[in-house]
Amino acid sequence: MSKSVGGTKILLEERDIPTRWYNIQADMPNPLQPPLNPATKQPAGPQDLSPIFPMELIKQEVSTDRWVEIPDEVRELYRLWRPAPLYRARRLEQALDTPARIYYKYEGTSPAGSHKLNTALPQAYYNKQAGIKRLATETGAGQWGSALSIACSFFALECQVYMVKVSYNQKPYRRLFMETYGASVVASPSNLTVAGRHILAEHPDSPGSLGIAISEAVEDAATRDDTNYSLGSVLNHVLLHQTVIGLEAKTQLEKVDDYPDVVIGCCGGGSNFGGLSFPFLHDVFTQGRKVRVIAAEPTACPTLTRGKFAYDFGDTAKLTPMMMMYTLGHDFMPAGIHAGGLRYHGDSPLVSQLYHDGFIEARAYNQKDVFAAAVLFARHEGILPAPESAHAIKGAFEEALAAKEAGEARTILFGLSGHGHFDLSAYEAYLTGMMEDVPYADEDLARSMANLPEIK
Amino acid sequence: MSKSVGGTKILLEERDIPTRWYNIQADMPNPLQPPLNPATKQPAGPQDLSPIFPMELIKQEVSTDRWVEIPDEVRELYRLWRPAPLYRARRLEQALDTPARIYYKYEGTSPAGSHKLNTALPQAYYNKQAGIKRLATETGAGQWGSALSIACSFFALECQVYMVKVSYNQKPYRRLFMETYGASVVASPSNLTVAGRHILAEHPDSPGSLGIAISEAVEDAATRDDTNYSLGSVLNHVLLHQTVIGLEAKTQLEKVDDYPDVVIGCCGGGSNFGGLSFPFLHDVFTQGRKVRVIAAEPTACPTLTRGKFAYDFGDTAKLTPMMMMYTLGHDFMPAGIHAGGLRYHGDSPLVSQLYHDGFIEARAYNQKDVFAAAVLFARHEGILPAPESAHAIKGAFEEALAAKEAGEARTILFGLSGHGHFDLSAYEAYLTGMMEDVPYADEDLARSMANLPEIK
Repeated sequence: MSKSVGGTKILLEERDIPTRWYNIQADMPNPLQPPLNPATKQPAGPQDLSPIFPMELIKQEVSTDRWVEIPDEVRELYRLWRPAPLYRARRLEQALDTPARIYYKYEGTSPAGSHKLNTALPQAYYNKQAGIKRLATETGAGQWGSALSIACSFFALECQVYMVKVSYNQKPYRRLFMETYGASVVASPSNLTVAGRHILAEHPDSPGSLGIAISEAVEDAATRDDTNYSLGSVLNHVLLHQTVIGLEAKTQLEKVDDYPDVVIGCCGGGSNFGGLSFPFLHDVFTQGRKVRVIAAEPTACPTLTRGKFAYDFGDTAKLTPMMMMYTLGHDFMPAGIHAGGLRYHGDSPLVSQLYHDGFIEARAYNQKDVFAAAVLFARHEGILPAPESAHAIKGAFEEALAAKEAGEARTILFGLSGHGHFDLSAYEAYLTGMMEDVPYADEDLARSMANLPEIK
Repeated sequence: MSKSVGGTKILLEERDIPTRWYNIQADMPNPLQPPLNPATKQPAGPQDLSPIFPMELIKQEVSTDRWVEIPDEVRELYRLWRPAPLYRARRLEQALDTPARIYYKYEGTSPAGSHKLNTALPQAYYNKQAGIKRLATETGAGQWGSALSIACSFFALECQVYMVKVSYNQKPYRRLFMETYGASVVASPSNLTVAGRHILAEHPDSPGSLGIAISEAVEDAATRDDTNYSLGSVLNHVLLHQTVIGLEAKTQLEKVDDYPDVVIGCCGGGSNFGGLSFPFLHDVFTQGRKVRVIAAEPTACPTLTRGKFAYDFGDTAKLTPMMMMYTLGHDFMPAGIHAGGLRYHGDSPLVSQLYHDGFIEARAYNQKDVFAAAVLFARHEGILPAPESAHAIKGAFEEALAAKEAGEARTILFGLSGHGHFDLSAYEAYLTGMMEDVPYADEDLARSMANLPEIK
């Protein structure tokens, strides 16, 4: 079939679903700085986290064991859609006229439509095991809320979602999706929490933000005995669970006797990016392999490319522990770009440390260029990408053209973290020429960066 | 893992993608009645079809060869998502407390979101081979238009979609989906055709219907040399292409040493239903196996359960050949139920003949019962079903409860033809108690049935 130009899917058997998650804390050259209690600014211990997280997840958060066993119950649910397909993008290679081999790992076959279910399931599982009855969380674009709603329906947990108000109003289908699985969804800022009421009193028309919604969900969990908090990105245990992505991709590439020269993921909080790339960084750390790893982010929220490596809060109300991370400041308010999942002011401490230490590169893209890449991808590969994932596509295009320029048959792997079925209004804006590029204003960035907390 | 309650996915290798489609015309006890030229009412020959179809598809339409080779180029594109998964619905079995084993074949992992791409690809391929530059088609709910748009983008064909006006207005995301792949989409009735202008002159506010949209697309294709017509259901070659569904499902059940006592599919034009069930009817005809085959349809458009087996037109403007089929009359206007893909007045001649001859059973369901089944399914299996597919879920529930009543561990296979990501307004109507059951009015049915053409 050498004349064929169709895509090639590299499949695995169910027995190839990983049995263990990979914990990069075992291998990274410089360990993480500890999170700090937001009041005392002293290192936070398990007792700081236990009001809102079950002990098993707290243990995973601080573990330096290289491998963490995946519970049978979680692995069984992974089988609903895992192993996820890895594609060789042959049609795209032809369109780009590149000697590069382009592969993408597609997480959109999950019933939630993205990689988020990889961590929603274990989080729901460990909370259920700990006797918790209800989970509170935030969601921006809705990918994470959708995943946690499904996970909670599987484990018979109540699910309370604080959805950033602007998304709540713009994306009714995302809200309806969560409600179909039984979740309660409220627009944030809401009247359900002190944090929400405080914001509404000052700014009745606040469009909300991820930072505000996190404050609400954390407060909800901290003030109810039956409730814990669940976060869809940023934290170590979240990235740990997502390593099933990269572990499978490695096995799939082995099947076709290939290995990436460069690995590219979109990066907001960092869970998709870390999940894909960490198993390859493992080879860098333990076998001295050379792999370039690239994080793709929006110019409108350029956390890695323009942020500062510093301690900062995870939320607006300063309820979360302070974390050492690349940040634009906890009150940075990014423009309303269509990749809502990449609009977080901070980045995972793990990704941040590795970027700081030079193991990761970062690139920022304008959304019009990102959508141009998304449409070209859809027309050649068939799949409609999520706007977040399209940042990785744009990065792959750049690398494919660089390979062409160099005349080298490089191997490129990128993560297609989800489908764009709920993002068609964004495609409409692009196709009708109504899409604007909305980079941050330099003065806004300077202001929020000046608000970083002081740590002695 | 016997304690496990997770779903079990039965996977195949890419080499298990069928190499041949199954043609039930080789085995059915009573052959089809020929289609009739709408003007002369004499049997239609290839010359009646060649203005709008390529010769390869016309040959398939009338072939009685049992197996038809799938072109390499088509099979290569099938590999984008095929083999499609077969699931054992263990969590659902537990929820229904049934001794039955319930399996479902899921076609929603196709980039178009439904089974429709199975035939869109070969139709685009054969038209491209025949030198055609442009395809015209109709779409109701949008599943078919989405699939043909993707197929046309792969084969660099222009794509003109006449979309039923009520759907065009209610489902902007479906329209945007097609446009993202480069299709031109117009609300039908439109000013682009004589048929459309005629309707608009009489009924400027016409909401459109599938029958009208077919008239427009057929006229478009018949009046332009570079353009052919493409239909997403009903015709023999369409059902032929869809047999990949049932062929794969048989192979998957063999892997777990099982075989269905009953096969259930939703049935509008019949392509999903025939694609799933015909390979099992093959065993009935050639090996004397006993398999019950059930077509699930809406009470609002009860073609099999209340229609008449008679010659009728496929469209409102009477441009298509007349076909011998179960029909409610070519001007029957079904209520605006949410399963838009099941709102066609007729049924595939193949399904109709086999139903007439007693090899198929049919059931009609109210949409509220259908959505109750869909929500229960989503909460236990994770996947959000399309409203059309949910009719098959409802049928499977009935059979599972019948098995419980009988105390028999029957094997049930149903087709989950697509996901419901573009149907969340329907779920909203159901969850908020705003959904109405809208059966046909007896007098409307009597009127349209009285309009059937007379054949001597």
